[in-house]
Amino acid sequence: MDDIRKKLTGVFAPVVTPFRNDELMLDDLRYNLRKLADSDLTGYLALGSNGEFRSLSDLEQLHVLEVFAEEKAGKVVMAGTACETTRFTIEKTRKAAEMGFEFASILTPGYFARQMNDAALIGHYEAIADASPIPILLYNAPGFTGGVQLTPRAVIQLSRHANICGMKDSSPTGPDRYLTILDHATDFHILAGSANFFYASLHLGAVGGIISLANPLPAPCCDLFRLFTEQKFDEALDLHFRLSRLNAAVSGTHGVAGVKAAMNVMGFRGGEPRLPLIPLTDSERDKVREAIIAEGFNIW
Amino acid sequence: MDDIRKKLTGVFAPVVTPFRNDELMLDDLRYNLRKLADSDLTGYLALGSNGEFRSLSDLEQLHVLEVFAEEKAGKVVMAGTACETTRFTIEKTRKAAEMGFEFASILTPGYFARQMNDAALIGHYEAIADASPIPILLYNAPGFTGGVQLTPRAVIQLSRHANICGMKDSSPTGPDRYLTILDHATDFHILAGSANFFYASLHLGAVGGIISLANPLPAPCCDLFRLFTEQKFDEALDLHFRLSRLNAAVSGTHGVAGVKAAMNVMGFRGGEPRLPLIPLTDSERDKVREAIIAEGFNIW
Amino acid sequence: MDDIRKKLTGVFAPVVTPFRNDELMLDDLRYNLRKLADSDLTGYLALGSNGEFRSLSDLEQLHVLEVFAEEKAGKVVMAGTACETTRFTIEKTRKAAEMGFEFASILTPGYFARQMNDAALIGHYEAIADASPIPILLYNAPGFTGGVQLTPRAVIQLSRHANICGMKDSSPTGPDRYLTILDHATDFHILAGSANFFYASLHLGAVGGIISLANPLPAPCCDLFRLFTEQKFDEALDLHFRLSRLNAAVSGTHGVAGVKAAMNVMGFRGGEPRLPLIPLTDSERDKVREAIIAEGFNIW
Amino acid sequence: MDDIRKKLTGVFAPVVTPFRNDELMLDDLRYNLRKLADSDLTGYLALGSNGEFRSLSDLEQLHVLEVFAEEKAGKVVMAGTACETTRFTIEKTRKAAEMGFEFASILTPGYFARQMNDAALIGHYEAIADASPIPILLYNAPGFTGGVQLTPRAVIQLSRHANICGMKDSSPTGPDRYLTILDHATDFHILAGSANFFYASLHLGAVGGIISLANPLPAPCCDLFRLFTEQKFDEALDLHFRLSRLNAAVSGTHGVAGVKAAMNVMGFRGGEPRLPLIPLTDSERDKVREAIIAEGFNIW
Repeated sequence: MDDIRKKLTGVFAPVVTPFRNDELMLDDLRYNLRKLADSDLTGYLALGSNGEFRSLSDLEQLHVLEVFAEEKAGKVVMAGTACETTRFTIEKTRKAAEMGFEFASILTPGYFARQMNDAALIGHYEAIADASPIPILLYNAPGFTGGVQLTPRAVIQLSRHANICGMKDSSPTGPDRYLTILDHATDFHILAGSANFFYASLHLGAVGGIISLANPLPAPCCDLFRLFTEQKFDEALDLHFRLSRLNAAVSGTHGVAGVKAAMNVMGFRGGEPRLPLIPLTDSERDKVREAIIAEGFNIW
Repeated sequence: MDDIRKKLTGVFAPVVTPFRNDELMLDDLRYNLRKLADSDLTGYLALGSNGEFRSLSDLEQLHVLEVFAEEKAGKVVMAGTACETTRFTIEKTRKAAEMGFEFASILTPGYFARQMNDAALIGHYEAIADASPIPILLYNAPGFTGGVQLTPRAVIQLSRHANICGMKDSSPTGPDRYLTILDHATDFHILAGSANFFYASLHLGAVGGIISLANPLPAPCCDLFRLFTEQKFDEALDLHFRLSRLNAAVSGTHGVAGVKAAMNVMGFRGGEPRLPLIPLTDSERDKVREAIIAEGFNIW
Repeated sequence: MDDIRKKLTGVFAPVVTPFRNDELMLDDLRYNLRKLADSDLTGYLALGSNGEFRSLSDLEQLHVLEVFAEEKAGKVVMAGTACETTRFTIEKTRKAAEMGFEFASILTPGYFARQMNDAALIGHYEAIADASPIPILLYNAPGFTGGVQLTPRAVIQLSRHANICGMKDSSPTGPDRYLTILDHATDFHILAGSANFFYASLHLGAVGGIISLANPLPAPCCDLFRLFTEQKFDEALDLHFRLSRLNAAVSGTHGVAGVKAAMNVMGFRGGEPRLPLIPLTDSERDKVREAIIAEGFNIW
Repeated sequence: MDDIRKKLTGVFAPVVTPFRNDELMLDDLRYNLRKLADSDLTGYLALGSNGEFRSLSDLEQLHVLEVFAEEKAGKVVMAGTACETTRFTIEKTRKAAEMGFEFASILTPGYFARQMNDAALIGHYEAIADASPIPILLYNAPGFTGGVQLTPRAVIQLSRHANICGMKDSSPTGPDRYLTILDHATDFHILAGSANFFYASLHLGAVGGIISLANPLPAPCCDLFRLFTEQKFDEALDLHFRLSRLNAAVSGTHGVAGVKAAMNVMGFRGGEPRLPLIPLTDSERDKVREAIIAEGFNIW
């Protein structure tokens, strides 16, 4: 599985889905992907939380995946294929595999949060992994799933499945708890799901990150990873602090709408989120611009 | 709006959607509706949380609505029409209205829970109410939406919209907080969303309830409402306690899977939930049966 | 235990402890108790949460209890005697019994919240009840104890102890869950711990309430209880709504500091809370006054 | 303040307070301190959470402090001096200063958790810092204080006070959020409050940690710090994982009672916790012993 480890190493952008007046803008998505292709990003995640996958119809999701497949340009492409049910998640994962996606990142179900115990989640993921033509990544994000959280016990068991290759963790504490208990003989790779704990996670054994700031600021995110691999820890820590503060001002305060505003500031075509998510006001967008400048990043 | 108040008064069943081996069983649904038609239930909610609407494809949801439209049989029919976006919720609500549904019950969005502040939620509901041909009910259920909770301030503002006629509240504290602050001049009607606080809510001004136990046990639920209206409070309190204890053993412990098991015990065709929800084991189902008997309800 | 039921029936004030410039004002406490003696209150709770018992030294607590013992005036007197340990709670309970207190109300420990499982809490309360010369009341208030909550299973077991006569519940959902599962053969009496659910709790079988608004407004709180016992439910519901709204504006918004401000508005000597609790600003106090007037209560 | 930074650098043990049959065992405390004196620990925290300070009378707290003052043996000594009120915290802090303690670690108040906003907490800490003869450390531990959490904004303001020299953070996410936003010109030093995030915190700029495992296992905790300072990151990461797993089995599962059991396994005199905390059963203690061995640490 060395090849898988290599493919997962580095920084991924959970690419946003642009809208204008609630309409899906596939050309803007294409524009952004071509611009991101010039960066050192390892790859893209299509239809993640930042991709507002829950706000798209089934057909729209297909169209989004098609654009990614066409604009792959040598990057590693992952698709978010989670549905609330095992059955539909399998269907969507198979479709993504057919279209050329190399990994599926699968969020825990969340609607029936109280029922999502170890047995339910292990059964869910094992059935999907059995059926999937491509390796899958667990995706733990209690902030989007009513608090559902994969337990260390469940992760240990799932890590032994041959077709489950890793995990993205976006919980507030980061992936430390999982890294601690994983059997390092298993080929199971951890990706940090937030700029807040991306840098610390690297020190703890994560192979990379899928971080929303890589949408507007791919270069600094890749720089941080590079500084870590070069063991330039003082420079890395300084950059970590700058990115974390910016992340608090952008994603922490405004969620996807903030990421899109930052993209617009940086010359991408982020567009707007789909309602009920509300785009930033002009004054909020100005503050995002100021925060980017204040942390010393160049505006486009 | 006196007619609306009358239509919302009493007990509604949030009718479950039966599956077998993950397949949708429309005939079983039809069977259940015909059996429920003999009860004193005021009406049905199609595609609620107990209806596992998030576990159905768009096409399956349509098929479910068709069965309800055909099997209405003089009952008031509501449709759960919530999507994560304003746009798709409007589409689905219009479709339900075309098919003859009299009310739409609309759950708050929950995926981007942190962004669901008053402004986002008020904008969401006002846009839907403006566009809907039928009156809508707010549906507050933080347990299914990552903790999103309509604030009293938002409810007060929304209660003034001519096309928002009420609210179902399934939060752990029940609708007391809303009843307290509502302007009683407004035609806004509260339905309790759980057997736990249905009876107390009636004393506080709720017009009725949408309660999962009305799936397996429509008669006792309707009896409780009747005893309240007849001011037979000692009998009512005793029945409340019996239903609450049973609710804890069924819905509280097992969620939808428990409700379906209780239906099967009671001669309905509840079938199974869709995975990742796990059906009850035989021994769990026996305990549900025993709990029903222990509280003095007749088994079919 | 009929005598105990009678003593616990009705409204209790959890009497505040007045401070000025952080100094304990025993004369103001005495003044308040003499004024409250004219009301229909069943009794007083000394050293409750509203009494800021955790903000008093051991010696100050003793002085407060002495004032209550002297100013009993025919009312039933309870003492809050909770410490974090079993050992010191027993000492304090015995002391209160010696001084003439008729009941001890004992809050769950909260510092080591994660360790407060059924075994720890049952052991704690049984040891105290065994050692106490006076009957004790369990006091469940997760808002003050880091979320510690007595489980129904623990309450059922403790309700069977001959020296545990009841429970005050101040959790957000109110005592409904406990009322539902209690063996009604046991002499165990429930008191509601908030104006929010006091009225509904009476309909569900509670014998009374210990409610902070009884400090500034003893008469309306007693009126609500009387209207309930006279089965004047329309008038009772209206008064419930007025008291609940006021409670949200006073205790809900400002906690003990709000209760003290309302007392000052109503001619009591509430004084100030002890730091770090901050007294209300003049403008906040004016709003409390306006809220009292808006709900139709007479200002002193 | 270079001297302060030096004194806070490294590993501190939050020394437990031994009991037997609920009696305070000062000789056992003395024994443990003499044994810890041989380690590379930077210092001790007396009367911390692991010291069960809330379970001690005022007089017992004084006796504990006296033992620390006598057994200082060249170590840096901190005292936990938090009370629920500003007034009593100041008294206790002054007393600790008189007795020779060099720092006071002051937990946020927690009883009136809902009222502990920025204004209340900033006022509290500034008043204490103004009055204290010795520098103080903020102590953030939402698990012990009903969720009270110092906001970054409050910490920034407090970090500018000349007599507030740092902060211990025991929140589940660790001190990363504070490190990110601190003005590095200010002399403000962060100590990690758990073995879970001690190692990552060092990479992010923390100067050291106050960690419960340093009671039974001072040497490995000091080794981890040394390996970090020597930039032996592979060895450090391995040791971090071993200590984290052990911490989950000891402190995570059993709290203070687990720490004491581990001490007894390791030849210290941990004794028992005070009721209602329950000591480990023999079989639980055996599991702690096995966990220590499984992670490769030598048993005494």
